[in-house]
Amino acid sequence: MKRAAELELALAPRAEGVTLQRWLCGELRAAILAGRLAPGCRLPSTRDFARQQAISRGTVVAVYDQLIAEGYLSGATGSGTTVAAALPIAAAGTAQPRTSAAPGIARAAAADTAGTDDAATKRPRLSRQGQLLANSPFLSREGMVLGRPFSPNQPDLGAFPHALWQRLTHQQGRGLRPDDMGYGDGAGHQPLRRAIAEHLRYSQRIDCHAGQVMILSSAQQALDLCARLLLDPGDTALVEDPGYPGAARLFELGGARVQGVPVDRLGLCTDALPTAEEARLAYVTAAHQSPLGGTLPLERRLALLAWAEAGRRIIIEDDYDGEYRFDGAPLPALKSLDRHDRVIYLGTFSKLLFPALRLAYAVVPEWLAEPFASAISLTVRHAPILPQAVLAAFIGEGHFARHLRQMRRLYGERAACFQHECATQLDGLLTVLPITTGLDATALLPRGSDDRAVAAALGAWGVEARPISFYGMGQPAPPGLVMGFSACNEAAIRRGVATMAPVLESFNAAAAGNRGQAVAGV
Amino acid sequence: MKRAAELELALAPRAEGVTLQRWLCGELRAAILAGRLAPGCRLPSTRDFARQQAISRGTVVAVYDQLIAEGYLSGATGSGTTVAAALPIAAAGTAQPRTSAAPGIARAAAADTAGTDDAATKRPRLSRQGQLLANSPFLSREGMVLGRPFSPNQPDLGAFPHALWQRLTHQQGRGLRPDDMGYGDGAGHQPLRRAIAEHLRYSQRIDCHAGQVMILSSAQQALDLCARLLLDPGDTALVEDPGYPGAARLFELGGARVQGVPVDRLGLCTDALPTAEEARLAYVTAAHQSPLGGTLPLERRLALLAWAEAGRRIIIEDDYDGEYRFDGAPLPALKSLDRHDRVIYLGTFSKLLFPALRLAYAVVPEWLAEPFASAISLTVRHAPILPQAVLAAFIGEGHFARHLRQMRRLYGERAACFQHECATQLDGLLTVLPITTGLDATALLPRGSDDRAVAAALGAWGVEARPISFYGMGQPAPPGLVMGFSACNEAAIRRGVATMAPVLESFNAAAAGNRGQAVAGV
Repeated sequence: MKRAAELELALAPRAEGVTLQRWLCGELRAAILAGRLAPGCRLPSTRDFARQQAISRGTVVAVYDQLIAEGYLSGATGSGTTVAAALPIAAAGTAQPRTSAAPGIARAAAADTAGTDDAATKRPRLSRQGQLLANSPFLSREGMVLGRPFSPNQPDLGAFPHALWQRLTHQQGRGLRPDDMGYGDGAGHQPLRRAIAEHLRYSQRIDCHAGQVMILSSAQQALDLCARLLLDPGDTALVEDPGYPGAARLFELGGARVQGVPVDRLGLCTDALPTAEEARLAYVTAAHQSPLGGTLPLERRLALLAWAEAGRRIIIEDDYDGEYRFDGAPLPALKSLDRHDRVIYLGTFSKLLFPALRLAYAVVPEWLAEPFASAISLTVRHAPILPQAVLAAFIGEGHFARHLRQMRRLYGERAACFQHECATQLDGLLTVLPITTGLDATALLPRGSDDRAVAAALGAWGVEARPISFYGMGQPAPPGLVMGFSACNEAAIRRGVATMAPVLESFNAAAAGNRGQAVAGV
Repeated sequence: MKRAAELELALAPRAEGVTLQRWLCGELRAAILAGRLAPGCRLPSTRDFARQQAISRGTVVAVYDQLIAEGYLSGATGSGTTVAAALPIAAAGTAQPRTSAAPGIARAAAADTAGTDDAATKRPRLSRQGQLLANSPFLSREGMVLGRPFSPNQPDLGAFPHALWQRLTHQQGRGLRPDDMGYGDGAGHQPLRRAIAEHLRYSQRIDCHAGQVMILSSAQQALDLCARLLLDPGDTALVEDPGYPGAARLFELGGARVQGVPVDRLGLCTDALPTAEEARLAYVTAAHQSPLGGTLPLERRLALLAWAEAGRRIIIEDDYDGEYRFDGAPLPALKSLDRHDRVIYLGTFSKLLFPALRLAYAVVPEWLAEPFASAISLTVRHAPILPQAVLAAFIGEGHFARHLRQMRRLYGERAACFQHECATQLDGLLTVLPITTGLDATALLPRGSDDRAVAAALGAWGVEARPISFYGMGQPAPPGLVMGFSACNEAAIRRGVATMAPVLESFNAAAAGNRGQAVAGV
């Protein structure tokens, strides 16, 4: 049997803070995995090895024992200790030796030197769905910098009652019994489901009970489950165009075809709804169309429901910020008119409380409640207990309704301020559509503007705006900007709007120049 | 123009606690939606209506205004108030009237009377994937009652340091700035990712950095994303058989074929791994095979890695409770041997801390980190901030390592107790395999036993056990039971085992009787 030579046992120096035993184990493992110590090769006796390395024999015995337990070495009385014969390891040189330097860096460097044909082409591939998942619209955020005016979809986190929330967190955390800390119901914490059903019966006139309320970590997750539960490859999912890209992306994942339906200033054009049998599902932001801002009128709501009824179809009503209605009580939800149980109503606390809470809900038809709860339990099990318990108390004790009232007033004032400042400072450059609902304003640019270029230029001056073309899916849409006013106090609004004026003017001047040139050229 | 008759305006009595205005709005809406008040129909003047109903004229004016705003009514000066003409509503009787009784009950009753051809056949259908999602193995829990001996997968929640966790929750909650409460990074809270990477470098010898650590709400969610990112329809996913059904179900969702690979007492039989090109991914519980309990030996780990390398394949290593190793240090993870970045390592805090925390992680190859973070951001956005911050502090301050040490000792004692009690009280009836790792023991029943029947009989006597056949996917597996010892103190273990004795004896006697009969029959 081959004996380990001195060279094969050459050990890298011991790093600071690593115990002798850990170091020696690591070095021997590395030598075996790299093939320097071949399967079957015999190791020195513990006495000889201890003498060679000038360490205690006890340490060597412990190391050998550990590596025997791990399967690297075999120890048989009489024949000494050998490298395990059964290990499927190639001879030295063919396997890439592992360095003991800082791991991430070492590996990255190794991958670099290996070149693309080794690293990239031998690498496992993403699935078709994986390639879509790898392109989330939320990663790049279109270069959006949060905390600057006028990032869309941002509640004012400074206006949130932190101290109260803290107190409830403390109370509820203390109140949890060991039983509450085990696996829970896929559909969510029962007190929270009841509190949400109660709130919706009152605020949205939705006739629902706790059994229909599914607790999720985000509306995005709810949409994903809706798509998976309801869409087969080849089905068509209808979305508003322009509309929320986060929904369209999810509908595509499972192989459904996504088709845009035109939107005007009132919302989805229900006359344009296709009646083909494949059209299985429509996604609609009825309370506050994203991005054009309309509130779907009653006759279109009824037409949409009739369309669903005519073809065994489903409507997903995404009410992401409709609770902020500035000109009177919120219109009752589409779901409140749903006499045939075809509407899934989605709500989120990201915009009503704070995004990092990660709680949202779906109110689903009776017939979908069990499949939906099952789908949650299979794909995530359920939402965490403490945030659910705190939120249930926050709603149940009346803090939620009060917070909504306060924010509705605050954001209403800011909406008016934003509207006024734009009207006076940006006259002729930008037309802010009437702001009736939500956290964001929709503003139209002069016809022919390149809204992406305008948004990029504004970004360079510290003002965030999302171009309407970001939401486009093929249908013509007016150039414009979606701008969040709700997280900015009035001084910030004035400053932000003032910053915009010269930027928009320069675009306007350039456009006028182009028009002039075009005329001269004729 | 038609005028509303008295009959059409007949209103249901006002329920207690409902304001006059809310009641009247609701009744008029219901009459319009039910078609009793047809589009175009003219309403009484506010003065007449107020007199008819004996209410103040101001209330009627407010109600008409509200319904005009909502689109139910049209009001034109001179011509009075009419039901909006454009509403797409059928004549009375064809639409189902909405009752104002307790909503859920009323609707369920309506569906019942409508009969199956109306309710069920006109209902939208679930997708193919939806039908699989509707059958989660976690919903029925096979009739499992938690909190009884010997429910599997249960940490001892009474032994969790609640007060300490509460204190950290309070501290971390107070430390959150408004910025932390907005939308976060899809891959997770950076301090938690760093803390986990650090822990794994030490405890599992996994060379990873924070950028590879993805924070999720559960291992189940991680598995779901792995399947979606990596499997196309027609691909084959390999699972252990018997093995964890929660993984197999997820792999099936997207249309992949799931193929079982046999398992022996050491774990996955790597000799039996198929080498077809479609075999894209293998799922393995290397540290503690679920349900047979083996720890995959080094040579099989290396063989599995070589298999992955040979075909651009992926290995998912689900280490759900391997940190509880009772006979020495945990074996280093498969991921620690992964020199070609093919292993996704999954860990969960459900078994190490408590399930309702809902935090888990995946350590992914470098090349998969960005796609994985993108997939999280598209399907859920990210995990909630507060639990992540608390857990980061819990790990960073050394509490996690201490808790693991304490639980390892506690569960080790309970494992020994369970093993001893079974050996003395259930000799010949049940053979508990050596317990080296985890929260659950694997026990074999006499050959030919019906383990589902035994588990059901034990359940009737208050003892939970999951039959090994629950985990079966077609390969032959020995009859046996998976039993959790870790949440039971020693008295409960003794009582539970004592309860089992007569139940198992009666099965044994019946089996002996059958054998006797069979012999007599020959």
